[in-house]
Amino acid sequence: MTLTRTCKVVVIMGSQSDWPTMKHAANTLEELGIGCEARIVSAHRTPDRLVSFAKGARDEGFQVIIAGAGGAAHLPGMTAAFTPLPVFGVPVESKALSGQDSLLSIVQMPAGIPVGTLAIGKAGAINAALLAASVLALSDPDLAQRLDAWRQARTDAVADQPSDQP
Amino acid sequence: MTLTRTCKVVVIMGSQSDWPTMKHAANTLEELGIGCEARIVSAHRTPDRLVSFAKGARDEGFQVIIAGAGGAAHLPGMTAAFTPLPVFGVPVESKALSGQDSLLSIVQMPAGIPVGTLAIGKAGAINAALLAASVLALSDPDLAQRLDAWRQARTDAVADQPSDQP
Amino acid sequence: MTLTRTCKVVVIMGSQSDWPTMKHAANTLEELGIGCEARIVSAHRTPDRLVSFAKGARDEGFQVIIAGAGGAAHLPGMTAAFTPLPVFGVPVESKALSGQDSLLSIVQMPAGIPVGTLAIGKAGAINAALLAASVLALSDPDLAQRLDAWRQARTDAVADQPSDQP
Amino acid sequence: MTLTRTCKVVVIMGSQSDWPTMKHAANTLEELGIGCEARIVSAHRTPDRLVSFAKGARDEGFQVIIAGAGGAAHLPGMTAAFTPLPVFGVPVESKALSGQDSLLSIVQMPAGIPVGTLAIGKAGAINAALLAASVLALSDPDLAQRLDAWRQARTDAVADQPSDQP
Amino acid sequence: MTLTRTCKVVVIMGSQSDWPTMKHAANTLEELGIGCEARIVSAHRTPDRLVSFAKGARDEGFQVIIAGAGGAAHLPGMTAAFTPLPVFGVPVESKALSGQDSLLSIVQMPAGIPVGTLAIGKAGAINAALLAASVLALSDPDLAQRLDAWRQARTDAVADQPSDQP
Amino acid sequence: MTLTRTCKVVVIMGSQSDWPTMKHAANTLEELGIGCEARIVSAHRTPDRLVSFAKGARDEGFQVIIAGAGGAAHLPGMTAAFTPLPVFGVPVESKALSGQDSLLSIVQMPAGIPVGTLAIGKAGAINAALLAASVLALSDPDLAQRLDAWRQARTDAVADQPSDQP
Amino acid sequence: MTLTRTCKVVVIMGSQSDWPTMKHAANTLEELGIGCEARIVSAHRTPDRLVSFAKGARDEGFQVIIAGAGGAAHLPGMTAAFTPLPVFGVPVESKALSGQDSLLSIVQMPAGIPVGTLAIGKAGAINAALLAASVLALSDPDLAQRLDAWRQARTDAVADQPSDQP
Amino acid sequence: MTLTRTCKVVVIMGSQSDWPTMKHAANTLEELGIGCEARIVSAHRTPDRLVSFAKGARDEGFQVIIAGAGGAAHLPGMTAAFTPLPVFGVPVESKALSGQDSLLSIVQMPAGIPVGTLAIGKAGAINAALLAASVLALSDPDLAQRLDAWRQARTDAVADQPSDQP
Repeated sequence: MTLTRTCKVVVIMGSQSDWPTMKHAANTLEELGIGCEARIVSAHRTPDRLVSFAKGARDEGFQVIIAGAGGAAHLPGMTAAFTPLPVFGVPVESKALSGQDSLLSIVQMPAGIPVGTLAIGKAGAINAALLAASVLALSDPDLAQRLDAWRQARTDAVADQPSDQP
Repeated sequence: MTLTRTCKVVVIMGSQSDWPTMKHAANTLEELGIGCEARIVSAHRTPDRLVSFAKGARDEGFQVIIAGAGGAAHLPGMTAAFTPLPVFGVPVESKALSGQDSLLSIVQMPAGIPVGTLAIGKAGAINAALLAASVLALSDPDLAQRLDAWRQARTDAVADQPSDQP
Repeated sequence: MTLTRTCKVVVIMGSQSDWPTMKHAANTLEELGIGCEARIVSAHRTPDRLVSFAKGARDEGFQVIIAGAGGAAHLPGMTAAFTPLPVFGVPVESKALSGQDSLLSIVQMPAGIPVGTLAIGKAGAINAALLAASVLALSDPDLAQRLDAWRQARTDAVADQPSDQP
Repeated sequence: MTLTRTCKVVVIMGSQSDWPTMKHAANTLEELGIGCEARIVSAHRTPDRLVSFAKGARDEGFQVIIAGAGGAAHLPGMTAAFTPLPVFGVPVESKALSGQDSLLSIVQMPAGIPVGTLAIGKAGAINAALLAASVLALSDPDLAQRLDAWRQARTDAVADQPSDQP
Repeated sequence: MTLTRTCKVVVIMGSQSDWPTMKHAANTLEELGIGCEARIVSAHRTPDRLVSFAKGARDEGFQVIIAGAGGAAHLPGMTAAFTPLPVFGVPVESKALSGQDSLLSIVQMPAGIPVGTLAIGKAGAINAALLAASVLALSDPDLAQRLDAWRQARTDAVADQPSDQP
Repeated sequence: MTLTRTCKVVVIMGSQSDWPTMKHAANTLEELGIGCEARIVSAHRTPDRLVSFAKGARDEGFQVIIAGAGGAAHLPGMTAAFTPLPVFGVPVESKALSGQDSLLSIVQMPAGIPVGTLAIGKAGAINAALLAASVLALSDPDLAQRLDAWRQARTDAVADQPSDQP
Repeated sequence: MTLTRTCKVVVIMGSQSDWPTMKHAANTLEELGIGCEARIVSAHRTPDRLVSFAKGARDEGFQVIIAGAGGAAHLPGMTAAFTPLPVFGVPVESKALSGQDSLLSIVQMPAGIPVGTLAIGKAGAINAALLAASVLALSDPDLAQRLDAWRQARTDAVADQPSDQP
Repeated sequence: MTLTRTCKVVVIMGSQSDWPTMKHAANTLEELGIGCEARIVSAHRTPDRLVSFAKGARDEGFQVIIAGAGGAAHLPGMTAAFTPLPVFGVPVESKALSGQDSLLSIVQMPAGIPVGTLAIGKAGAINAALLAASVLALSDPDLAQRLDAWRQARTDAVADQPSDQP
């Protein structure tokens, strides 16, 4: 049985320390009027939680999963292994390797299990929300309009010339 | 005016030389019973074609765009700049840098314009098709079933033990 | 119709945040007595502005375009796709990858559309201005002399021995 | 209940295509007189098999797990998340990135769940077997002697001078 | 003659400057109730100490060696060359290359002499201790229970949802 | 005294082994009706030749220098140090590092001495010629037309759809 | 005519900004009682000074040249092109790429012109001095003794155990 | 007691498989009339041989040591730890990482123990021989002349123009 819920996107992350990055995904979804939920699901410390979450995500009524993790970042790919929902991965910037490890661990998935990967860090978190929005907008004309407006507002906000004012 | 078309996914690529990679996206879509079209759209040699294609893609009735390119791979990101549709990018393996340039040029998009990026090369092309399918399946229960079956078949095909038979 | 203008170089950049780097290009042009203009042209947030700017740059009377961008830096290459003017690209240092993504996204252009790429960051911005000057000096003997003098002054400023004075 | 078995090491890998690398682990274990079993366990295509295997490995009587995988290589780390047994990971050489992605995906595990990682490719597979042997030898004096002899034989086989004979 | 000692793990490092990283290994061993000793053994400045330490480690009664080093990190591999004991290597983060040099110098050992390598920095140090514990737990049921409890406690400590409280 | 010559571009390279790459620059210049000369000037084996060539290039009547080199590629930068002419650098693909060393050695010039750097290998050689053409076209309307036509022809040659015909 | 001078090593660097790194070479030479001189020789800003310095270094009585530079670091290699003296190169840490560009620009010299390259940054500067000392010590038994003593003192200074005292 | 021997350079390498690279060092020494000896000394498989070789090298009468190794290449640095003689390191090209691991393992030595590192592969082997020659030439005027002649012959062999003849 699949629940009907207004919250169609779930933002998961490997640890509390990923939240300063991943909250930008949650905030952007909120700006676009998309209900979302944020959870900590550690692939390595709570693998059972990962399995039950990922297996149940479709039945919980989620439509898109945004997963952020750093280092040997297995959360997005393992989630995708357990669910047919689209999974978008955000490589969180790691300490020593600046997220290069996170990026490769997420994007280089083998044929069969896709993770749509965004940029390292905050930009990637915002863009994961926008990509989720573009997916949901395919069957939600109101959201499509809100997304268009959001994009247009950002276009309009670009000044013509650089300013030395900080 | 938006056309109704059975062909909901378009696979674009920067040049004929990307086709040996990108045809795996087209083939996978076909296996899943998803109509698709393949076009060459070079961001650098045919930039006007890129603009008109990307601006018109939603009105042509496409729902998902898969874009493959190599080297300084601008096609996926520039397409995303001109359309609100979800864009999935495939970094094509480049000669000197093995696709590392392609990957970074596609995935490191700034906040505001997302490209869901897949793995370098053939695996990425197959996965772009699967990710597109998972998106379309959100509003197409038949496709959802076909996708589940496709995944199950691949699961079933994994042998228990390695074989020395080539 | 091509305008005659004293401002022969235009410095464009993807966002206000690139200005602390790119202003070194503008300042160096000014030191060399070359008129220039600085504009924000975001390939991703203002793609239409990019197209109209790049298509019209020759007719606006510009002779050289300096374009700075970071991350998946598409501005220099896409500008070059729309104009026959020489385009010099400056990879702006990015947060996670220190400009390695910017560099590869700018320099690895496919055959047909060149971008003359300079170093990552401030040194690249200064050098883009100097390279523009060397191009303009080919048909401007006065500028050639000023450029020679500028270079000579820098040569003369190199001390013979290092100093512990900060 | 834990079975007593002579087969104390299990070599798992993500796919049949990893076997040409991982068989060197199996062969080396055999040379050392250590019983082992080889299985295909795909983290992405057979995630349930991964969970049940890893959770049950200690009760099956295994003492050491050697896990090989390539690309976004999640098998070693996810296995380690589900079992307290020592897990040694072998990064299999990937096509585009030569195993750099495999290496980082395996070695950069977060605090809490270790994977002892060996070199990329065949050397890593052989060394995973030797490392497993050194672990088992701690409580098996006969094996310790065989391992010492194996190492001595390799030392003795090193010629004094290079030879042009192929 | 082999001494019987309660201290079964030795943590060695190339210099005092590695201690802020490597003490996390020592602390973790202590949390698990495993006696350990910490020593400075520089492969380059005290090579004779390295040889005598490594040759004598088994007879001193050690069962596992944890070795941390940075840059051209030869300590783990050279120790492994002189002892049949399992050696686990921790790449210490280096100044210019952030531990990429340390990682490759430790993990890319040739066939014949294994070093089980952990992540760069603090996470790697903690995990080296956990991996040593998993090895010792194979023949120490009490330790196995303590290790299970340690892991369970960390699992239990993962919150369900991220918190904005710092 | 400056010679008037129809040959306004000189293509230099560090060794005969760079010619298979650099001849694409010469061929492209020829296609565009630009006279050019090709010379071997090794920064390391013939440093005196480098000095005299670079110091005299303007007086020889050259307007643009294209310099290709591989590995620790010093030719483009050292040439630029001795001449005020615009220098465009082509990183030749090196054996072990695939031109990454060539690229960084050419592009990362310090402030003061610019080298406009193109892509690694053949594409970079072609693009160096096109960039030289765009520079010369600033004062040569006929060449500007030929360059526009060359670009248009390449645009027209892009097929609409990929073909399986090899 | 070759001068006899007590100052047998010359430390050159591309700019004043390299001195905080390169002074460690000078200081180490001083500790070893080796006379040295430090000069700024910029390959790019003072190329004539480079040529005259390098051509004359043997006749000035120098026996070893230590050259430090950052970014596209051409100073060591170009010096080696003009002199038969041994040249030792120190890659100075660069801003964006942390000295990776400096390292590759110095070490990847083509066959024919060697530069003995040391580590990036301060360690490399110290080691260049030690390597110069080991060369000079071949014909200077007193220096050989001082070098042995210097090394022994460093060996003796390595504590047995790490200390938490900062 | 130090032997007097005509063979002043010893070329060591980690395994027979390094010889196809390292023989270029031996051949170049021979071309320059410098006696040399080639030995296999594996840091990992024959560590005792390494210790006795390195400790005795000065007393054997050697003046310069050339050491080649690949992967986690510890031979040059560990040799340098045991001898005050100048050690020049050659990173042998490795399979997966093309010698990047070899390079970093050799060049990134900590302060105190220098290894003068040459380029990856054949060029590095030739240059190690030339660097050794430049060191020996400091006290051997005949060799200095031969080295000058060798260099001059290579300078003279550089053609003026590239040739299409293969």
